[in-house]
Amino acid sequence: MKRPAKLDPAEIETRLGKLPGWTLKKGALCRTFTFEDFSEAFSFMTRVALAAEKMDHHPDWENVWNKVTVRLNTHDAGGITVLDFKLASTMTTLAGL
Amino acid sequence: MKRPAKLDPAEIETRLGKLPGWTLKKGALCRTFTFEDFSEAFSFMTRVALAAEKMDHHPDWENVWNKVTVRLNTHDAGGITVLDFKLASTMTTLAGL
Amino acid sequence: MKRPAKLDPAEIETRLGKLPGWTLKKGALCRTFTFEDFSEAFSFMTRVALAAEKMDHHPDWENVWNKVTVRLNTHDAGGITVLDFKLASTMTTLAGL
Amino acid sequence: MKRPAKLDPAEIETRLGKLPGWTLKKGALCRTFTFEDFSEAFSFMTRVALAAEKMDHHPDWENVWNKVTVRLNTHDAGGITVLDFKLASTMTTLAGL
Repeated sequence: MKRPAKLDPAEIETRLGKLPGWTLKKGALCRTFTFEDFSEAFSFMTRVALAAEKMDHHPDWENVWNKVTVRLNTHDAGGITVLDFKLASTMTTLAGL
Repeated sequence: MKRPAKLDPAEIETRLGKLPGWTLKKGALCRTFTFEDFSEAFSFMTRVALAAEKMDHHPDWENVWNKVTVRLNTHDAGGITVLDFKLASTMTTLAGL
Repeated sequence: MKRPAKLDPAEIETRLGKLPGWTLKKGALCRTFTFEDFSEAFSFMTRVALAAEKMDHHPDWENVWNKVTVRLNTHDAGGITVLDFKLASTMTTLAGL
Repeated sequence: MKRPAKLDPAEIETRLGKLPGWTLKKGALCRTFTFEDFSEAFSFMTRVALAAEKMDHHPDWENVWNKVTVRLNTHDAGGITVLDFKLASTMTTLAGL
């Protein structure tokens, strides 16, 4: 499967406008999700893991009990690609937001 | 931790009356949960796994894509105990039902 | 993605010969995996879940504490296909066998 | 369950000496685990999640594909406690190290 090229800043800005809750930090799409407890947070991570493995595109993420903080970019493209926006959108849906 | 004794049939019937959606089959509390897809089913299983491990009481369960069929009894008590009702109640809540 | 056709009995027999530990029961490839405890069993299931979701081909499976019993066939092909042998092989590897 | 008190620096040093692979950084026990791929890393996280939930003591951790970076301390004790050493030891074992 051909990997997508990185998006230019204008494209990123346009797409971010349609993705409320996500912000651009240090070249990555970022968001912190907050859940009721660890169990709900880890269950969310499991669903995301299944989706990410299927896309062959994985998040950089951190978990502290009920919080999951995500950074998305595409290492081998050297920036943000459509894969990151797709995963961000999937994560938003899986979090019920 | 002392393990509970098995409940007698009258107690089981009373408790089942307060647990809609579950039925008694061959000495076990049974229910089939249906989800949207495999991902949602497996995510539910992950939450239940965390709760079960914490209780040190685990379900007998089967998964076929979006369905999770559960049988609960307490092997070492030779019947249904309060642990089964507690796990059934937890599973019901975690399934959002 | 085009889904594969079901294999004929001779092909199944040949392929089963190369897959020690698996047996043919009621039209499905079957195996029971035994682990040390629930945690190891569920962790195995998580790895299989990731692989299955990626293949878009999922096992019928049952878990009782440290045991995972698997039945593989391809519902929409009405029999056993190469996908089942691929998943069986993956599960064997992931179980460290 | 009574929560343990934080350990003093001498105790931490003594215990760290028996826990090769872990280091002390900014008041936390730290280690990066490297796996073959995302699937193996996430499966490790699932086992740790089960153990952590059972202990009611959870790691601060970050995952980047095949790497899991862990920071352990006990927020409500304001430092490192025996729970952190217990979880560190469990994680080491579950990683097969």
